[in-house]
Order: sequence, then structure tokens, then C-alpha cells
Amino acid sequence: MNTKNNFPLAVIGTVAIDGIETPFGKRERAFGGSASYFSYAASFFTPVSLVAVVGNDFPSEFRKILEERPIDLSHLERSSGKTFFWRGKYEFDLNTAHTLETELNVLTDFSPKLHFETPPEFLFLANIDPVLQEKVLDQAGKPKACFVACDTMNFWIERKRKELLRVLARVDAIVINDGEARQLAEEPNLIRAAQKIHSWGPAQVIIKKGEHGVLVFAGGRFFALPAYPLETLFDPTGAGDSFAGAMMGYLAKTQDLGFENLKRAVALGAVVASFTVEDFSLDRLRRLDLRQIEERLEIFRRICSF
Amino acid sequence: MNTKNNFPLAVIGTVAIDGIETPFGKRERAFGGSASYFSYAASFFTPVSLVAVVGNDFPSEFRKILEERPIDLSHLERSSGKTFFWRGKYEFDLNTAHTLETELNVLTDFSPKLHFETPPEFLFLANIDPVLQEKVLDQAGKPKACFVACDTMNFWIERKRKELLRVLARVDAIVINDGEARQLAEEPNLIRAAQKIHSWGPAQVIIKKGEHGVLVFAGGRFFALPAYPLETLFDPTGAGDSFAGAMMGYLAKTQDLGFENLKRAVALGAVVASFTVEDFSLDRLRRLDLRQIEERLEIFRRICSF
Repeated sequence: MNTKNNFPLAVIGTVAIDGIETPFGKRERAFGGSASYFSYAASFFTPVSLVAVVGNDFPSEFRKILEERPIDLSHLERSSGKTFFWRGKYEFDLNTAHTLETELNVLTDFSPKLHFETPPEFLFLANIDPVLQEKVLDQAGKPKACFVACDTMNFWIERKRKELLRVLARVDAIVINDGEARQLAEEPNLIRAAQKIHSWGPAQVIIKKGEHGVLVFAGGRFFALPAYPLETLFDPTGAGDSFAGAMMGYLAKTQDLGFENLKRAVALGAVVASFTVEDFSLDRLRRLDLRQIEERLEIFRRICSF
Repeated sequence: MNTKNNFPLAVIGTVAIDGIETPFGKRERAFGGSASYFSYAASFFTPVSLVAVVGNDFPSEFRKILEERPIDLSHLERSSGKTFFWRGKYEFDLNTAHTLETELNVLTDFSPKLHFETPPEFLFLANIDPVLQEKVLDQAGKPKACFVACDTMNFWIERKRKELLRVLARVDAIVINDGEARQLAEEPNLIRAAQKIHSWGPAQVIIKKGEHGVLVFAGGRFFALPAYPLETLFDPTGAGDSFAGAMMGYLAKTQDLGFENLKRAVALGAVVASFTVEDFSLDRLRRLDLRQIEERLEIFRRICSF
């Protein structure tokens, strides 16, 4: 692999303004979006390139948050119009996000154009229209050494199944939540669901189960980790994207796709996600450093081993 | 502790005849009951005494199944009347048992009378009326070295909360499923639910989450294990009782209540439960030996560690 690439990892996804309501508080215009969480989490491990679009209402203080970190913004387009907006509410149990409002805005006509000098070896297609995921795949190509992972959601599984299956046939890994894995595979047993999704393309199937941890099928074998036990879950928004960001960031940093290294990457994903949910938006990640991540990883290791 | 006791572990619970229907088949009169599964699973690690009642219809071939193992049946009463009967059905996803029929029969007037020469140091109050759990506690006493754990279910949480809380104040550990832990604690966050239940008495709170594994609060700390990833879940009946049986059996065998040994006991519980669900009733446990348990434990250890 070309280790001279300054940005060995890229993500395509959303940069959003979120309206969030949890039992603990409310924030009217929070910085959000799958690519924002992903790239911030990944940046603890490796420089990352963010491919997304924002509107001309996008606050400069949000852009500055990304600029704090080794995040390349040369593919962050600015279009006339409003930034993608999502409004969600979490009930008492915090397990399910209820979408109250989605305004696609500048996402409607977004057509990502990649102009990397050296294409990234690691690419994450965050939750976005599979048609856009395909466009990025067409442009990024899939160099021999490149590792591509994708996410998706119920909305696309229901509406663009055919396009989504085309994407799956071209990726190395899928990172998906448990409900969506069951829905995609039409199979309630998660073990069998993972194997079925694997048969459609991805060598690695990574199923996020929220408070129940993560289940991974890779190299013909399974492994599973519980979630980091958190007493104070404040705002679950971005947990899945931070998980994927830290996992991919660590894989890109270590350039090792072996089973044991994937385990460590997944554990780091779980740890970084456990920080994300301790505060609104990217607030907790902004107060986070590698030492804190490593400390919690060590506690997590002790929690899981017997 | 008195290691000369031939039966260092006892369980009070049900010995039942089950009518089971799963998507894979049906069995009209299967051998079941919390104390049956518990004692069979425990017997891989330690001799165990079974305290329960059956009716005069109880098949001698079921009794012989227990006699195959180091299970003391001197506290298995035989009453005139019919054996406790439960009929349940599992839907496609196998996660939830739907109770179709419950006939208490000889359980209605059951009043356990203990006549141990040496009281067992380890005692499990399986899922049964908390009033009966209390009666056993009154008779077993709680010698200084004795370790008592209990289980319960939604039925008792709703109908006999007061009695149940009295039991909780007297036990060292509770083994309970996740839905019931949330219901008992009136708290959707499992971490906080465990702490709340702990504050009512049990030093150790062990929450069974089915396909999502187990969460344990002990010694002021948490640990968590995923479930053993099983492709073929055949009949979930008895999974929780086998889990508790293997866990308590191992604790009674090792006489070590430390945090690390509890982890091993919980892992063994998860492993033995993963065998139970591979077939109807006790059928898979009857084909099981310690070598198979240890092999799967080693795979499980690799699955969980990173």
C-alpha cells in the first residue's frame, strides 16, 4: 500500500445540522451528520478526507471544529441552498431515534466529484443514497489494496434495495445495525443474517447492536464484543458513525486487515462510540484524547476477558 | 466452608412437563422445569441437590434422566395430582416464549421441607413463587459461608413485588433476564437497573440478555460477555436455567467468589446454555461431556478477547 498518502482514509457521507431532543435536554442546531462523526472519530488514528456537501448556511464555527483535526476538507463542497437538516427525538430508553423531520436540502442534487492525487486506500461509504455510494465507488475505483466499507439504513433497504445490493457486491465490509441487518437479510437470526449478507459480497459483516455491543463475521468466523458499560448515556446520535470512524481509522493506521487486528479496531470503535454518547453532538469527542481512549480500552479489555 | 458436604449445591424450583412448539418442531410432553435444567447443567461441575415436587403422573424415564447424573433426589417430593405443566410456543425469531398454558397442579400446595444433614453452602432459588423462595431461605438459614442466588420472572414482579423484595434483601446474587431487570428496577438503562437492584440487596446482579449475552455487576464493577454465536438455535427453553446451573455449579466446585472466577463461571454458564438450545428439552445436555464444554469455552474465550 502507498503509505505516502497524506490521507489514507476517505469518507463520503452527510455533514448535517441536527435538531436533537433527549430526555436530558434539547439542542436546536447541533453539528451532526454521518461523515462529521466518522471523520472526527477516525482522526484520532489517521488523517482522513471528508467528502460531503454543505449549504451556504453552514456555520463557520462547525467548519472550524473539523479544522481542529487532521481532516482534509478539500472535498467538502459548498452549494447554494441549505445544509442537510435532521430533527430527531429520543424517548426515555434512548434506544430508538424517532425522526421528526428530514430536509435533504443541498443533498438533493449532490453528485460527489473526487479529485484525489493519490486515491485513499481505505474508503467508507457512510449512510447515504446507494446511488451516491456507487458514484464514489466508480470514481475511487477499487485499487487492489483498497479496503472499502459501507453503511446503510432501513430507508434505502426499503426503497433502493437493488442499488444497495450492487454496492454490497463491490465492498469489502459492511457496518450495519442489528435491526437493519435482519431487515436486509430477511432473517431474524443475526448469525444467519450475517452469513447471508456475506454471501452477497462483503468479506466482513460488522453488526452494531447499540447497548448490546457488536457482532462480527470475518474470515469465516465470528467474534462478538459487548458494549462498553455506560451509566450515563446522554445523546446516542453519532454512536454508529463514530464506531465506524474509529474502526476504519485504526485499520488505515495499522494497514493490517487480519482477524486479530480487526478485533482491536472494533474494540476501539466501541470505546470511541462510548465517549460520543456522553454529550451532545461532537462535544465529548472534542474533549477526548488518545490517552483517554487507551485507558478506557484497557478497562474494556478487562471487562471482556475471562 | 465444609467441603465434606456431598451436595454442596442445592436448587429449589420446578420440575415440569412442557409442551413445546418451535418453528423446527413440536414436542407434546418434554421433560422441563427450572430445577431440572439447573441441576443437570450444574452436575457437570458438582453434585447438586434438587428440591421440587412432581405429581404421580411423573414419568419414571424422566426421573432416570436425573439419576444419570450426580443429582440428589431425596428432596424431590411426589404428591398425588399432576406434575406442573407448561405449554409454550416460539415464533420465527425464537426470542420470546409465548406461554399458551400453565397448569400449576401439584405446585399449588407445595411447601418445601428441607432435611439436609449438612446444609448446602450454595443455594439457588430458581424461578418460583417468592413465598416459596422465602420458605426455603428460612429453613436453609444463611450460614456465614453460604452463597444464595435467585431468579424470578415478570409474573412475580407484577403480583408479588413486596415478597420478592424481601427475598432480594436476603440473597447474594440475582440472575434475571434483561426485560425483567428493567421491569423490576423500573429503569430502562440496564446499567442503572443493575445498580438499583444491587442497592436492594444482591451483591451480584447477573442480567441474562439471550442472544446478546450477559451483563454482570459485581464488586462495584461491571463485566459483560456476548452470547456464544450459534447458527442453529433449536429450542430456547431452559437456556437461562442451564446458564445459572453451570455458573452456580462451577462456583460451588471452585468455592471461589472472586471477580475473575465469577467471570469464568458466567462464561461457562453461557457455553452450557449454548448447548442446551441446540435441541429439545435436556436432549443436548444428555449428549454433552466436559471435554465438549471446555472446547467451546476455549473458542468462546478467543471470540471475546482482543
